[in-house]
Amino acid sequence: MELIKTVEEMAALGAKLRAANTKVGIVPTMGYLHEGHLALAKEAVANNDVVVMSIFVNPIQFGPTEDLDQYPRDLAGDMAKAESVGVDYVFAPQPADMYPAGYATSVDMKIVTESLCGASRPGHFQGVCAVIIKLFNLVQPTNAYFGQKDGQQLAVIRRLAADLNMPVKINGVPIVREADGLAKSSRNVYLDADCRSQAVVLNQSLQVAKRMYDAGERDAGLIKAAVRAHIETAPLAEVEYVELVDALTMQPVLRPESQVMLALAVRFKTTRLIDNILLGEDD
Amino acid sequence: MELIKTVEEMAALGAKLRAANTKVGIVPTMGYLHEGHLALAKEAVANNDVVVMSIFVNPIQFGPTEDLDQYPRDLAGDMAKAESVGVDYVFAPQPADMYPAGYATSVDMKIVTESLCGASRPGHFQGVCAVIIKLFNLVQPTNAYFGQKDGQQLAVIRRLAADLNMPVKINGVPIVREADGLAKSSRNVYLDADCRSQAVVLNQSLQVAKRMYDAGERDAGLIKAAVRAHIETAPLAEVEYVELVDALTMQPVLRPESQVMLALAVRFKTTRLIDNILLGEDD
Repeated sequence: MELIKTVEEMAALGAKLRAANTKVGIVPTMGYLHEGHLALAKEAVANNDVVVMSIFVNPIQFGPTEDLDQYPRDLAGDMAKAESVGVDYVFAPQPADMYPAGYATSVDMKIVTESLCGASRPGHFQGVCAVIIKLFNLVQPTNAYFGQKDGQQLAVIRRLAADLNMPVKINGVPIVREADGLAKSSRNVYLDADCRSQAVVLNQSLQVAKRMYDAGERDAGLIKAAVRAHIETAPLAEVEYVELVDALTMQPVLRPESQVMLALAVRFKTTRLIDNILLGEDD
Repeated sequence: MELIKTVEEMAALGAKLRAANTKVGIVPTMGYLHEGHLALAKEAVANNDVVVMSIFVNPIQFGPTEDLDQYPRDLAGDMAKAESVGVDYVFAPQPADMYPAGYATSVDMKIVTESLCGASRPGHFQGVCAVIIKLFNLVQPTNAYFGQKDGQQLAVIRRLAADLNMPVKINGVPIVREADGLAKSSRNVYLDADCRSQAVVLNQSLQVAKRMYDAGERDAGLIKAAVRAHIETAPLAEVEYVELVDALTMQPVLRPESQVMLALAVRFKTTRLIDNILLGEDD
């Protein structure tokens, strides 16, 4: 495995791989890898000739009051994990190389970014969209892999790729969970023992929603109320949102007809966790 | 020469050309081709294996009060001209195919878009940036060709390509002029005989600026005043802007040091013309 540290080297490698008609998979990450990331990498390794994993804590997708400086980083550990699952290249650029002086471009999206995390994290998805376009242009991948855990991000990137006619297939990969059901997240390390044990209510509440949906319940208000009630059995849980949205547009729905996503964001002390479940069949 | 009418066909052709490692040049246009466009196409034909010319009157780069519906169109004539200079494919999609229902993405740029036409045509360069990203993703070109006539557009696209790490070389091509110096433009057809004859003041005024600059004048205010005074010798000319800007950032400069662009926009009755000249050496 090779470490690529500069934009210039990555552009040259991307061009070389393209000229050789290599089937390239990209796994964009912010590092501090867990089994969720590695599931993306394994999927990429199984379906491409060469896999590039980017590890870049993208400053422009963090708000001024968010945890950019505190975001956990461990490049050496990440390199070992990436190599263990067969990643060929880790691309870990510096922020000043990705956003040099004079950088002036921003990307925005209506509708899909306006609910859920887009509502509570203004500017977040603008930063995500810009960095994804940049990474795709540098790596020139055939396939890109994103986790369903960041469900709105996946919907945003699918919309972005379609809107901009990107020659890349966007692949969503199911959420990887701990034994007790907590979704794997780099932010889980922030949880103290009390918060960690109470955080199981997130996945449990999604299962409450699934049971109601499977039993035929189609009133979004009732489903969301039951989810919220279950989360609130955890004294340290502070709900940021519980929402039922269309799986493609991320717009709230009152009575699900096509596939929907039950999505939630909950704070445990200073740690913000998100989780979601898809309900109903894909079209 | 072949006409490509749909986004789907263009994406398939782009992928095929890429897989064959073809050196592809793209010439993005809004059609109603004149010798300026054909100069771009000839440059592309001379330096690439395959040339794709897009002909698309991009609705999102026109403001609500602008001339979208009146913009001149002549696909049959354009096809003949494109073929005569060796273009291989004309890509002429429908607006609803480029911006289908649910399209949600927008691209914006600070600094470079804030002066000149960016100031007088709000949203114009957002539309330009989005369509250029889409065309590049569909065609997957090695080279792209733009006229220096739209000097700010060229600066915007250079900035866009650099910011987003696009794997495309942006080539600027000098302005092509009529015998009397008027810059070739699809909008020249709107000019009546009086306006047409008076429109020669545009290029004349640029030559005034060049003579002052070459004689050592570096006071932007004096240069702009002389340009404006010359334009105003034409009774039908209504100046929208006369500005001296940095050639890369498009920011107004008081005393030129690096390369600058003297740019102007002037209305003759309902027709808005632009022109410019580069002064000083490129870095």
